Amino acid sequence: MRDALLLTPGPLTTSLATKTAMLHDWGSWDSNFNALTASLRQRLVALIDGGEHYTCVPLQGSGTFAVEAAIGTLMPRDGKLLCLVNGAYGKRIAQLTEIIGRQVSVLDFGETAAVDPARVAEALVSDPQITHVAVVYCETSTGILNPITAISEVVAAAGKKLIIDAMSAFGALPLSANNLDFDAVIASSNKCLEGVPGMGFVLCKTAALEQASGQAHSLSLDLYQQWRYMEQTGQWRYTPPTHVMAALMVALDQFDAEGGRVARLARYSANCQTLIQGLQEQGLQSFLPEELQAPIIVTVHAPAHPNWNFSEFYQLTKERGVILYPGKLTSAETFRIGCIGALGQAEMQIALDAIAHALKKMDICL
Amino acid sequence: MRDALLLTPGPLTTSLATKTAMLHDWGSWDSNFNALTASLRQRLVALIDGGEHYTCVPLQGSGTFAVEAAIGTLMPRDGKLLCLVNGAYGKRIAQLTEIIGRQVSVLDFGETAAVDPARVAEALVSDPQITHVAVVYCETSTGILNPITAISEVVAAAGKKLIIDAMSAFGALPLSANNLDFDAVIASSNKCLEGVPGMGFVLCKTAALEQASGQAHSLSLDLYQQWRYMEQTGQWRYTPPTHVMAALMVALDQFDAEGGRVARLARYSANCQTLIQGLQEQGLQSFLPEELQAPIIVTVHAPAHPNWNFSEFYQLTKERGVILYPGKLTSAETFRIGCIGALGQAEMQIALDAIAHALKKMDICL
Ligand SMILES: Cc1ncc(COP(=O)(O)O)c(C=O)c1O
Ligand SMILES: Cc1ncc(COP(=O)(O)O)c(C=O)c1O
Repeated sequence: MRDALLLTPGPLTTSLATKTAMLHDWGSWDSNFNALTASLRQRLVALIDGGEHYTCVPLQGSGTFAVEAAIGTLMPRDGKLLCLVNGAYGKRIAQLTEIIGRQVSVLDFGETAAVDPARVAEALVSDPQITHVAVVYCETSTGILNPITAISEVVAAAGKKLIIDAMSAFGALPLSANNLDFDAVIASSNKCLEGVPGMGFVLCKTAALEQASGQAHSLSLDLYQQWRYMEQTGQWRYTPPTHVMAALMVALDQFDAEGGRVARLARYSANCQTLIQGLQEQGLQSFLPEELQAPIIVTVHAPAHPNWNFSEFYQLTKERGVILYPGKLTSAETFRIGCIGALGQAEMQIALDAIAHALKKMDICL
Repeated sequence: MRDALLLTPGPLTTSLATKTAMLHDWGSWDSNFNALTASLRQRLVALIDGGEHYTCVPLQGSGTFAVEAAIGTLMPRDGKLLCLVNGAYGKRIAQLTEIIGRQVSVLDFGETAAVDPARVAEALVSDPQITHVAVVYCETSTGILNPITAISEVVAAAGKKLIIDAMSAFGALPLSANNLDFDAVIASSNKCLEGVPGMGFVLCKTAALEQASGQAHSLSLDLYQQWRYMEQTGQWRYTPPTHVMAALMVALDQFDAEGGRVARLARYSANCQTLIQGLQEQGLQSFLPEELQAPIIVTVHAPAHPNWNFSEFYQLTKERGVILYPGKLTSAETFRIGCIGALGQAEMQIALDAIAHALKKMDICL
């Protein structure tokens, strides 16, 4: 049988070409492999128009490892982070910053509103100790799109440094150093770039990294040392995720062939619209107002029906080869459907049909 | 053309079956995937006869990440580590312990001797502050085998806790909770288990882990939280390296089919003997005396010949499809040849032939 369609926000469905790239082995010291590392780094910098001023530091592990490495390496020990929170991933940044022993102040916007740049500006005025600001571009716990450009402007105007968790946005939503000021953008192999999981990366202002020697709280998560070693030797400091990288390289080829970020965003946006409209026709309501909805993941209100049971619903759609995602909200019962991965209109229809089938089987008539 | 043979100590040559296991995608929330996680954890515990007393905590990232996580999580903040060093990997443990802000004392045996248990016993008597001892089972920088049983005995006799970096030994050299006392053993997917890189794991005494809440210096590298979350949900805390895990599962099937650890050790030992003897016939000398040599990686003296040049030698063997490894010693010029991976006698002969060819091309007559 074919693999299930993963309507999940990463790990997600990758193309067969991407997976097939893993049918080799690479020596991590070899020049062919070093060329792969160098090329990946360059291509990722180019995706944000990073030019000469930015560098890519890839890191083993999941995306959270890269977020922790960025915060731990780029913030001086006596720095203070203003963390903009409107969901679980923003909360996680605040949590890790506290664990690693840096000062952090949280500006919380609840689970259903975007970050408000005016409130960020106020917070920066009222606490001059703040050195850095962290924000999540697309807050994957709901799918909220944060106004990254306006946020970047108030942060820059206050003379502070911006760190963007673009995990679920990178490669689809606009993100360019030409019109946005930031010290670091963090993402991973297995979201909109449609690679397999196992590698995060941080696109850093080189000037910021140069000042970051000795700041990290960890050996493994020290981005400065990771970067220095790579620059000096062309190699990774510790064993690289060779197969994950090979898959990402081929995934980037497909990204280019599709037409790059703009084409990918168009496909995901169409996926998102098809889903939302199809759900609506079935009487299901998406959680976010249209203007807050990023075309990455759709949060859906659980039907207000006595027969509703997410586990059963999940199992029934799975029987049709469609994997959905649970909700992550404290304020409302929801489930989620990813719009990303190597999926298009045909797959969205399959997903909608599977959902209709599940509701029918559960005797939920909306 | 076929892939080069990787005579490197991981990443290494894996079988096609292992790589082919990666030709699928998995939802990280799905029950099928949770079953894979549970099974992997059980199988890894069984490999050390861990029974009820040990648990497996897998971790995203390279092996070093798992070592740092083990030290950072299992040592109380006011603990003190005695680090037994006879090569680069032992040194790395001391380095990371210092970086994460724990007390560490180093007992250094040089690069050419095994750890001496009698000196360990003395050190434990003379510094009662020490709570934990760390040792590398096979010090991959040379291939030295450390006397893990005798070390474990003196550590247990002193009432201290032992942490074993078994990265390059696990799955080949003997390591059983039935006759060895340790709090943690650390290894990774991509060495003697012959998987692909991207996942480390720590086999912990459950009782030690239960006391480790709040000790870690990091969110991502907190083994306690990783363990708790897995126990409670069956899932990984953060995105798991799905494809790496699938490959490891199939690699473990092949491990079992081969006859388990004993058969694997026999194959590696035969590889090692063939290499050492073949090198000797060509006038090349292995670096370690036989009694110190683990059948994992062979360090070889660079020929004392004016034409010697490792880069050229590497390139010439590579042309024959054989990837060797540079030396990592400060005291002598060497290169290294791994004995591990999905390779047997035929491949050792190919490697020896490639070496002979390279020496001839370089006009090095020994
Ligand atoms: C916005 C955001 N940040 C961070 C993460 C964490 O990434 P990982 O699960 O790879 O650690 C995710 C994962 O979905 C995310 O969407
Ligand atoms: C004994 C030992 N410890 C630690 C490591 C580090 O592992 P990694 O390179 O996966 O971080 C290695 C890698 O070769 C090793 O051999």
